[in-house]
Parts: sequence; structure tokens; C-alpha cells
Amino acid sequence: MKLSEGVEWGLHCVAILAMLPPGATLPTKALAEYHDLSETYLAKHLQALTNARIIESLPGPKGGYRLQRAPEDITMLEVVEAIDGREPSFRCTEIRQRGPLALEPAAYGVPCPIHIAMARADKAWHEALRAQTIADLLSQSQPHAGAQQLRKSEQWIAGRMRRT
Amino acid sequence: MKLSEGVEWGLHCVAILAMLPPGATLPTKALAEYHDLSETYLAKHLQALTNARIIESLPGPKGGYRLQRAPEDITMLEVVEAIDGREPSFRCTEIRQRGPLALEPAAYGVPCPIHIAMARADKAWHEALRAQTIADLLSQSQPHAGAQQLRKSEQWIAGRMRRT
Repeated sequence: MKLSEGVEWGLHCVAILAMLPPGATLPTKALAEYHDLSETYLAKHLQALTNARIIESLPGPKGGYRLQRAPEDITMLEVVEAIDGREPSFRCTEIRQRGPLALEPAAYGVPCPIHIAMARADKAWHEALRAQTIADLLSQSQPHAGAQQLRKSEQWIAGRMRRT
Repeated sequence: MKLSEGVEWGLHCVAILAMLPPGATLPTKALAEYHDLSETYLAKHLQALTNARIIESLPGPKGGYRLQRAPEDITMLEVVEAIDGREPSFRCTEIRQRGPLALEPAAYGVPCPIHIAMARADKAWHEALRAQTIADLLSQSQPHAGAQQLRKSEQWIAGRMRRT
């Protein structure tokens, strides 16, 4: 059970954009440079985040990306699903309806207990990520990375951001 | 985030073996036939379940598979992990330590908050599957599939099982 690499990239980029002051944007190039990521691959993930209305792109020479909503209104689940999709981890192919013991289809009106239990686990996973916003991540990262990292980040962003 | 097809096969096969009377086994061929599965692929998954001490194989012409423990002592999580491994869904590659803003490695003693939140979601998923045993599944499937399915299954198994 594996999420794609883009999930890590997307979560970090949304967290970086959450540090921008109002009215500012960051171009793809700066977002890629921040964590030394491939600009080409990152552009694809930023498009997925835009389609999910998590970030928005302002066009033109002063353009770039910014959050479309406040960090406290964006859950980690939204970012993960924007990048990796909403497919459940377990795909029930109804093998109980195959083979010599299969009954007529009408007998299977109720989902298979295996399917129900796997869906319940997915729900617990979703709820854990829905309970955590980008604002929560930022408030937790400050005591970890420390004042040094925060100051460096703010200066670096200020040198690359564009004012709309 | 996707589990392999073998997880569905493995869970159903363990549930079938849980219906065997004491001292009986079922050969791979019968397990494959029950839900019309590929015997070759199924053999690989049965080996993984054996390695995880969930089922055991008795050799010889009267041999076959049976559970190694009581159905109430086998959790769904054990079966899922036996087939699909124990890798976390999110692999943190520490991109925060890359790029022009990286600090010296010693500054990153505490895990990244993104990593922590993703691990918390995995824990919730694991706990949901650890809370559900194969015995639970069987007790739930009986009212669903109904007496008709259960009787058919028992007769079919009785015709193919081997007595040790």
C-alpha cells in the first residue's frame, strides 16, 4: 500500500505557500528550488492541486502560485487525494460471486464482510488526515525546525515571491 | 494507495480454511477452485501466509492447508501484511533536508510534522484491521450470505477436504 512520491512534494509545497504574506505568489521554479525537486514533475503536481482548488495560479510575469483558501481550511486529506486520487486502498472484485459455489446475483445484496472491514480501515485513515490542516502542520513545524529555519525560509521566500 | 489483488484472495482463503473441522486440510487446487482463482498465483500467496504462521501446510497425498491458529487469534491486519508487506503508505524522503535552505543534519532530530501526521493515519488504519479477527468475519458473513450459502460451502468443503 503505497502513496506516490508526489504526495510528499505536494504537502511540502502547500506548507511553503502557506508562509507567503497576503497578495504574494511563488513561481514553480522557486517552489522546485526550495527542496531541490524536479520542476517538470512538480508542475504536474501543482496542476493537480490547482484542479482541486487548493492552490491557484496567477498568470503573467508577476504570476505564480498561492493558496486558494486559508491554511486552516485545507486538510491534509485534500492534498493527498488531489495528488493521489480517491481510490480506496482495497478493491473488492467480488470473488465470492465466482466459482462453483456462487449463488444467483440477487443473493449478494449486502457487501462482503471483508469489503466492509477494509472500507472501515480506509475511513479511519481518511479521518486522521481530515483532522489535520495545513495550519496545524505549520504550527507544529516551528518548534521542530526552530527559529533558525523559519528565519531562513522567510528571507528566502521574500527574495523570490512576486507581489500581485 | 493500493493494496495488491492477493490481499482479497488471501483474506477469502483464510476465511475458507476457518470453516474446516479439526484435523482437516484443503489442497491448493480446492482453494483455487472455490472462488475460481489462478492456482499458480494463489500458491504464492499461500506461501506468504505460511511464512507468517497464519496457515500451515501438511505434506503428502493427504496433505493440504489448514489454519495454524484459531480464527479468533488471527487478525485481518496479519493477513494483509503477510501478503502485502509492512511498508508504510507514506515514505518520507526527508526533502526538507534538501535544497538551499537545508540546515546541518543535527538540526533535524525530530521527525517532520508531515511524516508524523502520515504515520498517525497509517496507525489508525492498522488499528482498525487489528481489531477485526477472522472469527469476526465469519460471524458477520453468515447472516449476509445466508443459510443457503453456508450449507453449500460446508458440503463442498466436506467433499474436498483431507483428513490428517
